[in-house]
Amino acid sequence: MSEQHLRPSPISATVDFEAEGVQHGFLRLPYSRDDSAWGSVMIPITVIKNGEGPTALLTGGNHGDEYEGPIALFDLARTLGPDAMTGRVIIVPAMNYPAFTAGTRTSPIDKGNMNRSFPGRPDGTVTEKIADYFQRVLLPLADIVLDFHSGGKTLDFLPFCAAHILPDKEQEARAFELVKAFGAPWSMKMLEIDAVGMYDTAAEEMGKVFITTELGGGGTATARSAGIAKRGVRNVLRAAGILKGAVETSKTEWLDMPDGDCFSFAEDGGLIEPLVDLGDKVRKDDLVARIYPIGRTGAEPVAIKAKMDGLLAARHFPGLVKQGDCVAVVAV
Amino acid sequence: MSEQHLRPSPISATVDFEAEGVQHGFLRLPYSRDDSAWGSVMIPITVIKNGEGPTALLTGGNHGDEYEGPIALFDLARTLGPDAMTGRVIIVPAMNYPAFTAGTRTSPIDKGNMNRSFPGRPDGTVTEKIADYFQRVLLPLADIVLDFHSGGKTLDFLPFCAAHILPDKEQEARAFELVKAFGAPWSMKMLEIDAVGMYDTAAEEMGKVFITTELGGGGTATARSAGIAKRGVRNVLRAAGILKGAVETSKTEWLDMPDGDCFSFAEDGGLIEPLVDLGDKVRKDDLVARIYPIGRTGAEPVAIKAKMDGLLAARHFPGLVKQGDCVAVVAV
Amino acid sequence: MSEQHLRPSPISATVDFEAEGVQHGFLRLPYSRDDSAWGSVMIPITVIKNGEGPTALLTGGNHGDEYEGPIALFDLARTLGPDAMTGRVIIVPAMNYPAFTAGTRTSPIDKGNMNRSFPGRPDGTVTEKIADYFQRVLLPLADIVLDFHSGGKTLDFLPFCAAHILPDKEQEARAFELVKAFGAPWSMKMLEIDAVGMYDTAAEEMGKVFITTELGGGGTATARSAGIAKRGVRNVLRAAGILKGAVETSKTEWLDMPDGDCFSFAEDGGLIEPLVDLGDKVRKDDLVARIYPIGRTGAEPVAIKAKMDGLLAARHFPGLVKQGDCVAVVAV
Amino acid sequence: MSEQHLRPSPISATVDFEAEGVQHGFLRLPYSRDDSAWGSVMIPITVIKNGEGPTALLTGGNHGDEYEGPIALFDLARTLGPDAMTGRVIIVPAMNYPAFTAGTRTSPIDKGNMNRSFPGRPDGTVTEKIADYFQRVLLPLADIVLDFHSGGKTLDFLPFCAAHILPDKEQEARAFELVKAFGAPWSMKMLEIDAVGMYDTAAEEMGKVFITTELGGGGTATARSAGIAKRGVRNVLRAAGILKGAVETSKTEWLDMPDGDCFSFAEDGGLIEPLVDLGDKVRKDDLVARIYPIGRTGAEPVAIKAKMDGLLAARHFPGLVKQGDCVAVVAV
Amino acid sequence: MSEQHLRPSPISATVDFEAEGVQHGFLRLPYSRDDSAWGSVMIPITVIKNGEGPTALLTGGNHGDEYEGPIALFDLARTLGPDAMTGRVIIVPAMNYPAFTAGTRTSPIDKGNMNRSFPGRPDGTVTEKIADYFQRVLLPLADIVLDFHSGGKTLDFLPFCAAHILPDKEQEARAFELVKAFGAPWSMKMLEIDAVGMYDTAAEEMGKVFITTELGGGGTATARSAGIAKRGVRNVLRAAGILKGAVETSKTEWLDMPDGDCFSFAEDGGLIEPLVDLGDKVRKDDLVARIYPIGRTGAEPVAIKAKMDGLLAARHFPGLVKQGDCVAVVAV
Amino acid sequence: MSEQHLRPSPISATVDFEAEGVQHGFLRLPYSRDDSAWGSVMIPITVIKNGEGPTALLTGGNHGDEYEGPIALFDLARTLGPDAMTGRVIIVPAMNYPAFTAGTRTSPIDKGNMNRSFPGRPDGTVTEKIADYFQRVLLPLADIVLDFHSGGKTLDFLPFCAAHILPDKEQEARAFELVKAFGAPWSMKMLEIDAVGMYDTAAEEMGKVFITTELGGGGTATARSAGIAKRGVRNVLRAAGILKGAVETSKTEWLDMPDGDCFSFAEDGGLIEPLVDLGDKVRKDDLVARIYPIGRTGAEPVAIKAKMDGLLAARHFPGLVKQGDCVAVVAV
Repeated sequence: MSEQHLRPSPISATVDFEAEGVQHGFLRLPYSRDDSAWGSVMIPITVIKNGEGPTALLTGGNHGDEYEGPIALFDLARTLGPDAMTGRVIIVPAMNYPAFTAGTRTSPIDKGNMNRSFPGRPDGTVTEKIADYFQRVLLPLADIVLDFHSGGKTLDFLPFCAAHILPDKEQEARAFELVKAFGAPWSMKMLEIDAVGMYDTAAEEMGKVFITTELGGGGTATARSAGIAKRGVRNVLRAAGILKGAVETSKTEWLDMPDGDCFSFAEDGGLIEPLVDLGDKVRKDDLVARIYPIGRTGAEPVAIKAKMDGLLAARHFPGLVKQGDCVAVVAV
Repeated sequence: MSEQHLRPSPISATVDFEAEGVQHGFLRLPYSRDDSAWGSVMIPITVIKNGEGPTALLTGGNHGDEYEGPIALFDLARTLGPDAMTGRVIIVPAMNYPAFTAGTRTSPIDKGNMNRSFPGRPDGTVTEKIADYFQRVLLPLADIVLDFHSGGKTLDFLPFCAAHILPDKEQEARAFELVKAFGAPWSMKMLEIDAVGMYDTAAEEMGKVFITTELGGGGTATARSAGIAKRGVRNVLRAAGILKGAVETSKTEWLDMPDGDCFSFAEDGGLIEPLVDLGDKVRKDDLVARIYPIGRTGAEPVAIKAKMDGLLAARHFPGLVKQGDCVAVVAV
Repeated sequence: MSEQHLRPSPISATVDFEAEGVQHGFLRLPYSRDDSAWGSVMIPITVIKNGEGPTALLTGGNHGDEYEGPIALFDLARTLGPDAMTGRVIIVPAMNYPAFTAGTRTSPIDKGNMNRSFPGRPDGTVTEKIADYFQRVLLPLADIVLDFHSGGKTLDFLPFCAAHILPDKEQEARAFELVKAFGAPWSMKMLEIDAVGMYDTAAEEMGKVFITTELGGGGTATARSAGIAKRGVRNVLRAAGILKGAVETSKTEWLDMPDGDCFSFAEDGGLIEPLVDLGDKVRKDDLVARIYPIGRTGAEPVAIKAKMDGLLAARHFPGLVKQGDCVAVVAV
Repeated sequence: MSEQHLRPSPISATVDFEAEGVQHGFLRLPYSRDDSAWGSVMIPITVIKNGEGPTALLTGGNHGDEYEGPIALFDLARTLGPDAMTGRVIIVPAMNYPAFTAGTRTSPIDKGNMNRSFPGRPDGTVTEKIADYFQRVLLPLADIVLDFHSGGKTLDFLPFCAAHILPDKEQEARAFELVKAFGAPWSMKMLEIDAVGMYDTAAEEMGKVFITTELGGGGTATARSAGIAKRGVRNVLRAAGILKGAVETSKTEWLDMPDGDCFSFAEDGGLIEPLVDLGDKVRKDDLVARIYPIGRTGAEPVAIKAKMDGLLAARHFPGLVKQGDCVAVVAV
Repeated sequence: MSEQHLRPSPISATVDFEAEGVQHGFLRLPYSRDDSAWGSVMIPITVIKNGEGPTALLTGGNHGDEYEGPIALFDLARTLGPDAMTGRVIIVPAMNYPAFTAGTRTSPIDKGNMNRSFPGRPDGTVTEKIADYFQRVLLPLADIVLDFHSGGKTLDFLPFCAAHILPDKEQEARAFELVKAFGAPWSMKMLEIDAVGMYDTAAEEMGKVFITTELGGGGTATARSAGIAKRGVRNVLRAAGILKGAVETSKTEWLDMPDGDCFSFAEDGGLIEPLVDLGDKVRKDDLVARIYPIGRTGAEPVAIKAKMDGLLAARHFPGLVKQGDCVAVVAV
Repeated sequence: MSEQHLRPSPISATVDFEAEGVQHGFLRLPYSRDDSAWGSVMIPITVIKNGEGPTALLTGGNHGDEYEGPIALFDLARTLGPDAMTGRVIIVPAMNYPAFTAGTRTSPIDKGNMNRSFPGRPDGTVTEKIADYFQRVLLPLADIVLDFHSGGKTLDFLPFCAAHILPDKEQEARAFELVKAFGAPWSMKMLEIDAVGMYDTAAEEMGKVFITTELGGGGTATARSAGIAKRGVRNVLRAAGILKGAVETSKTEWLDMPDGDCFSFAEDGGLIEPLVDLGDKVRKDDLVARIYPIGRTGAEPVAIKAKMDGLLAARHFPGLVKQGDCVAVVAV
């Protein structure tokens, strides 16, 4: 169905996207339910505008248990004055707000994974209604889009900023300029194999300059990882010509995840003993972890080995692993 | 009620504590419930014995979401041969086994916090029955006791080994010898203010040499933290004259937590922005974290400050903090 | 997809809609699930017929926590004899029967809000299957349709009967005649802004004369509100020429809810202190409620003000309010 | 066990009960659990003191779904200045704070009914720890005690203030003076048949002047019922000589509940049709309600009759009734 | 604490145990909770009395998922007239009524296992309050006690009636006379190893003649097993001289469970393949079942062997088995 | 939408369907969720191939609480060597693997009933993704398909093998040859009235020879019923020319379920007293069960009667019955 035939979004904004100055408000999404017949989901939003210029759409909490983005964006929303900038910044620190308040990857309302829900539906689930609003209202307003991710409660990542390899090489080049400006310790070129339903894809198909991050994980943030996010977002705004001042340059190391051999999955659940830490070098067939069956002592653990040379870029976080979980990711 | 009047423990062991060699078995605790009328909790246990000598009782999983201990003990149970030792080693890698299999601090059956359940009761909850079995069967067999802890899913600690300041100074001195032998990067002298119900207290009141650890947290383990645990337990067995060979010495830094000013609590829930990382130095009145109200952007965060000079020894782990949570612990 | 291509409804009725006399039976909807492989939902239904004449379709429990309708209809089904009437009355006192038995607004099976599920689907959720049966079987049998609502557990309303402003003015006029006959203390002309998925719309688009009510709320009924419902339904049947005898006239006051300024929403959750009761007059900018943050004493409450002159027609019911809840509705 | 042998309460107050002026703070109760190893329950408290004089202990939220008390006390804590008074006022608006935040009668942590948990235990459940703190710390500080109740989510009451018939007639007389000063529309003399575990009994056994209320119910408050509470608490403080100024007198009607015949219970669950409203007069054998079986239409409802002459003082609130529920209370 | 110092039971009966004729009523146990502040548990009871003679106390639903007893007792309560008997019959078809209505072994309210809750407590959990009422009110009224059991949802038994080996040999002999009269296909002499908390023990310690049954299981009943129960209870009443007429004799086979080798437990969970059915003969070391690990195909199943010669008297019922479950019971 | 336009299945197999010999592996289905961001469902699969010949696709666990199929297939996967056969056998013992591990009819992830989910969707729920993989990958590989069913936790069946009456009489004849070879005690010709969404229909519409079974129920298996399954699957492979050797012939009785009068449904919930067992003969109007209302003793039970002559082929299993449940099925 073509988009112009869709019914209007049920979401209404309490902010005016065209007004000058700083506005803190809400995206109000009516949500009738057993414990509130006429209730709503109220997604916090800040719009800061100063004259003409490009628009940056900055989002965190696409997954509700990833914290560097929300920290950087609640901070930015509170401290960025219109005088320091030109153009417009739209900040949604907790895109999947129900998931964010619950501290979960997906929405507790409908189990919706926001990053698999695009383009969304105005008459769908709560998660799909939010996606639809970004698809049809917010993304069209933007020139550049920065969407913060981390590993969440069940994964841990080396901190990196990333963009996708795209058919439009100019669009791709502009994105990688922003990745470089972000200045994370690591940077990555990603080739998404299954991009269906992603916010990334929605933005890129509209021709927006889109960048994203993975900045740690485990359902926490550290002073270090939050600092990378706070510095990164300001650098991106500077590189985009919105925030005044020069990019604070820093050294980054480029990573690549060439194919499916990067990933090791557990065929058996159990207690995981990590043998390599994030950033450590591994060679093909090195043991990266052991998985102990927990039902008895004395049983042989299962060995998880690297399938290629590289360094450990991501790992399963919780101390227990389930059958089918990704245990380790090696990047080159 | 004096212990000799208690009914016998309902727990039966499938291992013989007096037999020579390696035995892997279970502590079987009958547990009748809706989904198994004649079911049991089966707690894995290993006993390794070689002739006469002291007995070490080694435990992990006192809290079910702390992983360095279980990793070191599943490993030790699988690899320690009787020929390498003299005396007896009793290994229970997951003391609160129902909590360990659920990945939770407390038991999913009765919400029992094992370390507040001593001396337990033979006719109490499942957690109290396990505590009673340690109190009346296992602790009396032991000379030295090592109980592994970490921060679990909601706290993160600098890795340290610790013992208590005790009225019996000889008992205390022997414990600190083992702490030193353990060889964690940090070591701590603890003065327990409220020791009621603790396994530590139960062991110490019987005159056992008792040491414990905090080796990280967040509900995960790293190669580094698991390595500290694996090396530490073998060092302790060597220092106790059970395992052959010399202690692998390493440098440790001593910490102290003098009083209640070490702890900072959150009076408000929200999104926590850490401003100091574990091991960082802080001075009195330094900001250690900010807590953002998550209901709206633009609101002022609450400042959490250090109440004394020192270094950050522990911190709240999840990205969201609840009213009343301990946010930071400063040690000197 | 046009309706004639839909597969038949899986629901079967144990009553014969064409038979004379009183029949009490069920709409049986097969519902296979974990606790009953070959189970069914059994929706009680009564059909009373006496010769030729118009058909009234009377429904309660569209939302499962609204009680005036079910009380009036269980009473009517038990006491209405065919001799007292001409034509046919079809009574479904608990349309969303799973929600009604659970005492919840939406279905506990699928969280379906019946009044947003039309036209339904024969191969959809349980709620959608019920909607489809009304859409394709029951509504086509009806000439007039009365659907009872109240505020449910989370809202409280002044008792009123209502009909919609419609493009077909004759259809509209006939509906307002029935509203007048119903004889509630208040009556309302409604202009539905977002009518997608409503039972009301489904009925009106088939040209049926449709009226509805809001008769109180809070998840209870009183002798007074149940009395309004019982008297109202008999008056409607009299006005429609089905029940013999004259309408018992009573005075009603007409209300109007002109636009979105009628509604006040909470941007913050907390303890609500109502300052105005239902039916009280308010002027623009009058305080209608305060919301106290519950985390601490001494903090300033948030003020909720009327946005227009009028009287309080509906209010949030529970003592605690959630962010995004509708707090008050002012009518003129 | 005599109280002096009990271990100290684990609760610590952030306020100083002996300090002059207004303090808003917390009773902090450590509560270690799966989602916060070092978490706490933070119960808001306000202490206002001005020189020497009697101490009033004012509590709401003994049951967590009763709102007139918390509204009056959050309001009083925010607006009462020390200059307007002499002596001391201790305000705990939400005694069972976990229940209050959950909007439930009992604690979501341990299902504890605060008013059946006295004298509590320092090593018991969270609810018992709070009761113990009132028993051993707060009640001994008080001269007069006012504990607010309402019907909660499942009962609805005529608004009344009450005190108990006591063996010490002077204590009793002083209590009824305060009841009269409170000035609710109804007042009641209560003879508690089973007083074990009640806060009332704990206070009275210490010789305190204790009064309580029932001010409505249904899990909501109205402007009217909240107004009764706000006026009543100030009147009580005036009558006690703490708050300056004269009692605002108002007319009250005295009620009595002589014996078990006041109560009607449901032997069958179903849909309840109330036939009498609160305050209506009833005579012995009058129908007060019908209970319809909800499984089918056409079945005969069960009749609930008054067992004595009087007026309806309380009633079951939800639209569905469960087997064994109290349906109606008649007072004389 | 001696029983005479206990507070009275909170349970009140709506029947008069001394009245002649048939009475159907309730044991009403007040149970205040979130969804009913003044709610009760209503346990159905029937008392049938005709002149002087012995009293039989007949109970089912001690465990809530065992059905032969409730079927026989609901039938008996409905069909037994006082003219057919002499003395008194007290029938409680569903002793743990909350468990029975939930279809679970233990109470959904407090997880209480009725048969481990004696002597109960008047101020304990709901289950303990019921046990206390049997201990102090109903058992003292009885001469003979028949308590029906079956395997419940997780066990399946050969149908047998049983009594205990007792120190008082006359009491024992009278019990085995009733077992013989019951006339189940199998009969058993039981030596209870751990009798603490059982209803059986409570009755026997008062000198009552106590018999019990296991009549099948799996959470169902068959026409055959229900028939055994219905015939058995009438036979017992005849043998006790209460019901008129002669015992319907039938052949029974006597079983014995000599020691712990009767029981086989699973050390590993998985899919169970039974190799022997109830009543089949087994020899020591025969395979009785295999347990397949379900995580992968091709893995070796664990063998469960008989530890003695005999026949299979009971077995684990569900298709999946959990670590620690009893898999099979062999009797001789 | 035609199938060739669907996106590829997200499921990847770790086995090669064209390789010779025995392979045990998994169908890996990525499943991102709160407790594993990069998790997967791992469905065990075995492929055994020896040269050219027909392919049999053998499935159990279509419903997760039916055990004869999984037992026979875990056994076959472990014991069938390629030398004993010609062609290919694909074994998926637990088709709806999440349901099987939970022991539930439907998937705990999405409540999906696998046998109503065909043809599935590659971008649907987990259950729909599995169905889609069978629809587009596994079924096309097969010549004959055997799908094991039993009654599950809530139904019990006489053990039979069955095939459908089909428009293609040659396809139908080949199916009934396999039914006969299977050799269950009973065999059935089925005419499916509502075949939408079934695996059966999906297979038959591709022209595959499809047979199925009902082999007992109640959520358990017996040595007898598991033996029927184990012998049956090998017989079918022999009859299909895949497994070497002759079919082990055994006597079967043919059943027929002609119309809706086979089924009796409960209009009231309660305690069910079965009066006829599986396989017993019944005549029209015979009582097959009574349903006792459980709220009180002495009330009249509801009678359930046979609507035709025949024998009891299936019955409701749990001791309590819910309104709308199928109570009994009579076959001829």
